[in-house]
Amino acid sequence: MNFPSKLIEDAVNEISKLPGIGKKTALRLSLHLLKQDQSFATSLAQAIIDLRTRTTYCTVCHNLSDTPVCSICSSPKRDHSVICVVEDIPDVLAIENTAQYTGLYHVLGGVISPMQGIGPDNLHLDSLLRRTEVDSNKEPVREIILALPATMEGDTTAFYLSRKLKPTGVKITTIARGVPVGGELEFTDEITLGRSILTRTNYSTE
Amino acid sequence: MNFPSKLIEDAVNEISKLPGIGKKTALRLSLHLLKQDQSFATSLAQAIIDLRTRTTYCTVCHNLSDTPVCSICSSPKRDHSVICVVEDIPDVLAIENTAQYTGLYHVLGGVISPMQGIGPDNLHLDSLLRRTEVDSNKEPVREIILALPATMEGDTTAFYLSRKLKPTGVKITTIARGVPVGGELEFTDEITLGRSILTRTNYSTE
Repeated sequence: MNFPSKLIEDAVNEISKLPGIGKKTALRLSLHLLKQDQSFATSLAQAIIDLRTRTTYCTVCHNLSDTPVCSICSSPKRDHSVICVVEDIPDVLAIENTAQYTGLYHVLGGVISPMQGIGPDNLHLDSLLRRTEVDSNKEPVREIILALPATMEGDTTAFYLSRKLKPTGVKITTIARGVPVGGELEFTDEITLGRSILTRTNYSTE
Repeated sequence: MNFPSKLIEDAVNEISKLPGIGKKTALRLSLHLLKQDQSFATSLAQAIIDLRTRTTYCTVCHNLSDTPVCSICSSPKRDHSVICVVEDIPDVLAIENTAQYTGLYHVLGGVISPMQGIGPDNLHLDSLLRRTEVDSNKEPVREIILALPATMEGDTTAFYLSRKLKPTGVKITTIARGVPVGGELEFTDEITLGRSILTRTNYSTE
């Protein structure tokens, strides 16, 4: 692509480095920026810089937070005896959006993946173990829910975690795997369907 | 969506103001930014600000340009006797990418659209008329190609322009409308197909 201006070429190159945005989309966005007020571009740029330079993480659960302890970890309304272990921040947002969970979280920051060189030491595992320690100042942890991806890496991490957490005596659960709500049986893959039969639950109309 | 941090909420809000980017995509981009080096975010932000604050337009053709007269208008290799009139900057890039055109351009900055309150006065029409004036210092304009969109607004603008340009005696042409290359006849709309029969050209194997 031949650009008439170095400035637009730079902008297209930078914007197209973002995932899922190609050169054509980047050009469309750049031309849109040119047509807007200058304040639009400056506030966008400022938000990007602030996000990257000022964002901090919760020291307890490693979720994004503007304060040393995030609003979930510091909320008296949440059940502090349950911790849901997730791979990354979007998972917290996804579970929060269901409005079905009132416990706390623990963001691992990834899953064990020898192929990508991610071992247990690269994840927030020590801090999770520390959270399960009995401390007279806080409510003891009663249950740890593993909400990890249903991939080989996710299963490996879940297995590793369950072994590490066994000595603590905390109850370890995992989110249900099965046919999605609204899913047709004939289009469900055989592993999910097979597992959903093996892990069938009592029928309840409540 | 409940955000754990005001900074990410701001970033998502700003990014999702861009056309074609929703909240979910904006969140994905924001989390990607957080995982990259700080230089990634700062150079992206800088490119956006530079684009909006430092970009200038060619005084002759109104295309984007870093110099008062753009590289196309100032090139001695281009045919200065032909001007291709387009609606906006992406059209210039699209035609340049075909590598089939060696003349100059004129960017109108829109098309006449009474519904959107865009009249002839809002477009770069006067400067186009001035370019057709005979001047001993430059090559006279021989042909004006109208490459406007095949919409009611585009056709209106083409009609208006042809009337305005008639007194100048310059030859006025328009890009061919017809069945696209690779297009199936049965899936071509009847107006395009009908027009392509009426405006048929001599068959040539050259």
